[in-house]
Amino acid sequence: MPSRDVRFSAVYRVAGAKDEAHARAGDICLEQTVELPRDVAVPAFVRDEVVGRIESFKKRAGGYEATVSYSVDCAAGELTQLLNVLFGNISLKLGVRLERLVLPPALLKQFKGPAFGRTGLRRHLGVSRRPLLCATLKPMGLAAEELAELAYQFALGGIDIIKDDHGLSNQSYAPFEDRVRRCVRAVAQANRKTGFHSVYAPNVTAPHAETLGRARLARAAGAGALLVSPGLTGLDAMRTIADDPRVGLPILSHPAFQGSYVLSPANGISHYALFGQIVRLAGGDASIYPNHGGRFSFSREECRSIVEGCRVPMGRLRPILPCPGGGMSLGRVPELIKFYGNDVIFLIGGGLFTHGPEIVENCRFFRRMVGG
Amino acid sequence: MPSRDVRFSAVYRVAGAKDEAHARAGDICLEQTVELPRDVAVPAFVRDEVVGRIESFKKRAGGYEATVSYSVDCAAGELTQLLNVLFGNISLKLGVRLERLVLPPALLKQFKGPAFGRTGLRRHLGVSRRPLLCATLKPMGLAAEELAELAYQFALGGIDIIKDDHGLSNQSYAPFEDRVRRCVRAVAQANRKTGFHSVYAPNVTAPHAETLGRARLARAAGAGALLVSPGLTGLDAMRTIADDPRVGLPILSHPAFQGSYVLSPANGISHYALFGQIVRLAGGDASIYPNHGGRFSFSREECRSIVEGCRVPMGRLRPILPCPGGGMSLGRVPELIKFYGNDVIFLIGGGLFTHGPEIVENCRFFRRMVGG
Repeated sequence: MPSRDVRFSAVYRVAGAKDEAHARAGDICLEQTVELPRDVAVPAFVRDEVVGRIESFKKRAGGYEATVSYSVDCAAGELTQLLNVLFGNISLKLGVRLERLVLPPALLKQFKGPAFGRTGLRRHLGVSRRPLLCATLKPMGLAAEELAELAYQFALGGIDIIKDDHGLSNQSYAPFEDRVRRCVRAVAQANRKTGFHSVYAPNVTAPHAETLGRARLARAAGAGALLVSPGLTGLDAMRTIADDPRVGLPILSHPAFQGSYVLSPANGISHYALFGQIVRLAGGDASIYPNHGGRFSFSREECRSIVEGCRVPMGRLRPILPCPGGGMSLGRVPELIKFYGNDVIFLIGGGLFTHGPEIVENCRFFRRMVGG
Repeated sequence: MPSRDVRFSAVYRVAGAKDEAHARAGDICLEQTVELPRDVAVPAFVRDEVVGRIESFKKRAGGYEATVSYSVDCAAGELTQLLNVLFGNISLKLGVRLERLVLPPALLKQFKGPAFGRTGLRRHLGVSRRPLLCATLKPMGLAAEELAELAYQFALGGIDIIKDDHGLSNQSYAPFEDRVRRCVRAVAQANRKTGFHSVYAPNVTAPHAETLGRARLARAAGAGALLVSPGLTGLDAMRTIADDPRVGLPILSHPAFQGSYVLSPANGISHYALFGQIVRLAGGDASIYPNHGGRFSFSREECRSIVEGCRVPMGRLRPILPCPGGGMSLGRVPELIKFYGNDVIFLIGGGLFTHGPEIVENCRFFRRMVGG
C-alpha cells in the first residue's frame, strides 16, 4: 500500500435515527478534513484520500456508532493537528461524541507516548506490585516551608508520590522554585529516615513559555515526578515535557479544565478516549480523574473505561496507571482495591487530613491498607 | 485596601432548587481554591482570603446565579492559573456553568490582551467603517502553489483577510514555510493590481515548541495576520504570540476543539465568556465562531452574546471583532449586516466557491454587498 493510503480511524457515537445518524457521519468526513460541501469540485486525490471515509456504521445501545477513517498525512505528525482531525470543528456540533481512537503503527510511531508508563513508573518508585499511593500538598495559600513540612509528613508516612495541588503554580505565597527546593529537601530527609523512595511531584502547569523551563528546573532540583494539567497548557505541552531529554521524569496528568469534554453522553469525548488514550498519546504516565462515589460525577462504568483506555494495546505506547482521586476517604480503600486491582495509584486528598488527628499516622494506615 | 484583599469574580449559573444551588456555589468556593472540606482547619489567612467567597446569589430565568470572588494573588499573574481558578476542577462537575468574568484593574493590568483590537485591526487593514471580509484557503490536500493561486484570486476579488483553513498545519501536501512564502507573494501581487491591502493569515497552530517560531517566521515572510486555534495550543500560547515583539500581527482565534465547553446550557462555559472575554484575555483580535443559521448549532442569542463579550468594557483590554463563519452563504449578507452592524468580520467559506462559477467574481460580489 503506498504510504499515502495509510489511514487512522475514530469511532464516533452519532445521535439520531438511522438516516440522521448516517448523515452526521457523512458530515464528519467533510467537516474534519476539507470543510467544503460535497458538491464543490475538488481534485481526485483530495476526494479519494483526504476526505474522511465511513468505514463502518452500526447500531449500538442507545444509537449509532460510525467509524471514520482519515489519511495519516492529514495529521502531519503533530498531536495538535491529530486532535484537530479527530475532533476540531466537530466539537462545535451537537450529537457527535468521540468514543475511541484506532491508530495504526504508521501513526503511532510518530509519538513516543509515556516515557515511563506503568512498568517504568513502578521501577522508578521501587514498588513492584501493590497499589501506589499519592497525596496532595495543599491548601493554596500555605507558605513554601509549610508545604515542605507537609511533604515531610507524607513521606514519613510512606506516601509514594507527593504532588502539588494542581492550583499551586507560582503564587507569591509559595513561589515555584523556592517551593520545589524545599519540598525536594523535605522528602529526601524523610526518605533517609524511612528507607522509602517517596518522590515529590511539583506542578509545572505554567504559561506557554515557562512550562518546559519549570519542568527542567524541577528535574535539576531533584523532583521525582511532575504534575501537568494539559487542559490548561494544551495537550502538546505535556508531550513536549515527556519527550524532553533534560526532564526525564514521570508525568501525572491532571484533568483540570477538561471536564466539559466528558460530561455529556451525546457530545464531547468519552472518558476512555480522553483520560485513557489521549493522555497516553500526550505522554502522561498516570491519568488523574475523579473517582466514582466521590464528590464528582463520574460513574463506575466511566471509571472502568478510563482504566481500559490506560492499558488497551496502542502499538508501542506504554500502558499507564489510572489515578482515581477526588473526595476519596481512607475507608474506601478495600472496596477500591477490589475495583481497581493493584495497577492503580490511589490519590487521597482531604482524607489524609481528616481520618485521624495525625497526618503521619493517617499515611501509615493508608500504606498498610494497600499492603505496603 | 491592602493588595492581598483585591479580588476578581466569576458569575456561575448553578443548577438545582435554591438550597442545592446555594450548596453548589459554596462548593465552588472550596473546589477552586483550597480543595479541602470546610471542616479541615486552615490558617486564618487561607480561610479569609484564599477560599472563594459568595458575593451574591440570585434567582435568574431558569435557575440561580452565584457570583464568587477570589483573591487576585491566587491567579499568580498567569492565564493558565487564572483559568484554573475560574473553571479548573469545576469543569468536572455537573450543574455549574461559567457565565462571565468580572475582572478588576489589578488583575487586568497583568494581561496585555489583544495587541490590535477592533480599531487596530481596521487601521492595519486600511478599512475604516464597513464590515471586514475573510475567506479561507482550502481544501486540505491542495499543494502550496494551488493554495497560493486561490489566495491570489481572493485578493484580486478584494477579500481583506485570506486565512488558511484551520486544518492546514505542516502537511507534506503544503508544508508551512513554502505555503506561507507562496501565499504572501500571491497576495502582494494581487494587491499591486488592485491597490487593496489584503493580508494573508497563515495558521500557526502547531506543536508546543513550534507555535511561536511559526508565528515569527510568518511575520518575517510578510504575512499580515495569523490564525491560532487556542483549544489545540492552549489559550496561553495565543497570548504568548500576541505579546511577542517579534511577531506583532493581528490574531484570529479559531474555535476548533473548544466546542464542548459551550454545548450544554447547564455545564461548561458561556459563549459570552469563552468566545468573547477569554479570547480577549488570551490576545485574540478577532473571535471566529459558527454563525447562527449555518451548519452549526449556535443560536442568534448565543451569537449576540459573543458580540457582547467581544466589546464589553474590560479595563484597558481592547474590544475585538466577532468573526461569524461556518456554512454562510453570500445571500445572507444583508440579513447579517442588519444583525451585526459594521463591526464584524464576515468569514465565508464554501459560499465563495459555490455562489457563481468564478471565484474572483464571487469575492467582488461579496465586497460590493458590504459597501466596499
